[in-house]
Amino acid sequence: MARTATAFAPGHVTVFFAPFPDDDPSVAGSRGAGVALSDGVTVTVRPTAERAVRLNGEPASLEAVDRVLDALSVTAAVDAETPLPVGAGFGVSGAAALGTALAAASAFDLAHTENRLVRTAHAADVEAGTGLGDVVGQFRGGMPVRLEPGAPGHGDLDGLPARPRIEYVSFGELSTPAVLGGDLAPIRSAGEAALTRLLDDPTADGLLAAGRTFAREAELLAPDVAAAVEAAGDAGGAATMAMLGRTAVGLDTALSDAGYDADACRVHPTGATVVGDG
Amino acid sequence: MARTATAFAPGHVTVFFAPFPDDDPSVAGSRGAGVALSDGVTVTVRPTAERAVRLNGEPASLEAVDRVLDALSVTAAVDAETPLPVGAGFGVSGAAALGTALAAASAFDLAHTENRLVRTAHAADVEAGTGLGDVVGQFRGGMPVRLEPGAPGHGDLDGLPARPRIEYVSFGELSTPAVLGGDLAPIRSAGEAALTRLLDDPTADGLLAAGRTFAREAELLAPDVAAAVEAAGDAGGAATMAMLGRTAVGLDTALSDAGYDADACRVHPTGATVVGDG
Repeated sequence: MARTATAFAPGHVTVFFAPFPDDDPSVAGSRGAGVALSDGVTVTVRPTAERAVRLNGEPASLEAVDRVLDALSVTAAVDAETPLPVGAGFGVSGAAALGTALAAASAFDLAHTENRLVRTAHAADVEAGTGLGDVVGQFRGGMPVRLEPGAPGHGDLDGLPARPRIEYVSFGELSTPAVLGGDLAPIRSAGEAALTRLLDDPTADGLLAAGRTFAREAELLAPDVAAAVEAAGDAGGAATMAMLGRTAVGLDTALSDAGYDADACRVHPTGATVVGDG
Repeated sequence: MARTATAFAPGHVTVFFAPFPDDDPSVAGSRGAGVALSDGVTVTVRPTAERAVRLNGEPASLEAVDRVLDALSVTAAVDAETPLPVGAGFGVSGAAALGTALAAASAFDLAHTENRLVRTAHAADVEAGTGLGDVVGQFRGGMPVRLEPGAPGHGDLDGLPARPRIEYVSFGELSTPAVLGGDLAPIRSAGEAALTRLLDDPTADGLLAAGRTFAREAELLAPDVAAAVEAAGDAGGAATMAMLGRTAVGLDTALSDAGYDADACRVHPTGATVVGDG
């Protein structure tokens, strides 16, 4: 019997990545690593006669969410709420897609396993051009490491056990499709090197150090983000750039110690899940 | 710098299983499915000069915990606290081992990934003879499905997205080594059939139905548990036996509706993690 259901998916900041596009969106993805955030997207799915998608109370066009509803063959009102900025590297599209898949499975009593729902959301995010690895990281939670690209059944994950406080400062949007439409070879090569470096030092500090080297080598560092990362380092903290957004992310009090008016949250310990129905 | 750290690992009830022993404890494991519980084991690890392991405040011998400390080469006081009965099918050994691994990594700043820590705890639980799949289920959380046996790098997991209320009643201990020391062929065959059945109907009700058939086919059903499962069904609910323990586990109010004085908890949504240090 259809009913309203709610799911939560953490935000996800990619710290470095090596993109692996593929015609099959379940196979496509990225190797890399990032941080799942306690700030995320809460998605409520309500069975209705006509589809309606809202973001923070306003009608919104979220292609990844539409693709999930299509793939699951359900008609629903989807309400996504998030404190995170959109288009700034927090994986809001992926979180909205994953939250929609999990909540819709509960609302419509779909007999699908979690891997199938994650695969559906990952494929939707890939096909919408809004993410290549956020969804699998958001489902795992913590500080996810993407050992092999792709959805469950294709990819392979690990994670760092650390759960530090996280700060972030956003300076505006960056177009994911524009960056991913260019020459991927230098990004992939820098991303592979960063993963090797991280697995030699799988700690929170090791992650951010690998990210800083990646951002420089892949020539993705935005000037305002570079200034914040440098200032955090000068103040004795660790920060790096969120891929892909004009956003700096730091450990503990790295950005506020450097004088930035940073938002703060925690590492989301354990990933996306249905949080309520009825 | 060494410091005190705390981790939480959910209890885990196996609903059905197909055992796959192996000389390599990371390869050994089971296919099957179960439920991670919000009732679990909280483990505090404190660096000390001499090892001391306590369970609910009393000195205790927990072989799986000792093996984790050995494998990680650390000396510590380990305090495990749990409301769950020991030896009754809740995976307390596995949770204590996994909690010890995660908390020790934080306490001693070990540069290990999550997969390595889960592998260490899984191998310790297998070698202690106290579990063949609890640890990987406790790390994933939710309603874990063990598609392939073994630790990360060998096994493969899926899960059911449902997060129902859970009730349980325990009638006493059952010796895991005694059962797993007998002829495994009929158990494996019943477990494989149950997994096929579950993947055809991957829902909470489908899980418990597969468990009831498994318990009957594998001839593992204890009489007092059988009576509780039957009474729950007569009262319109769904229950089954926790493997391996003289314990009945049910969905929502299945056991209390049948007149049993059941403990209640939730499905633990998302698995074990460090919860604090300092």
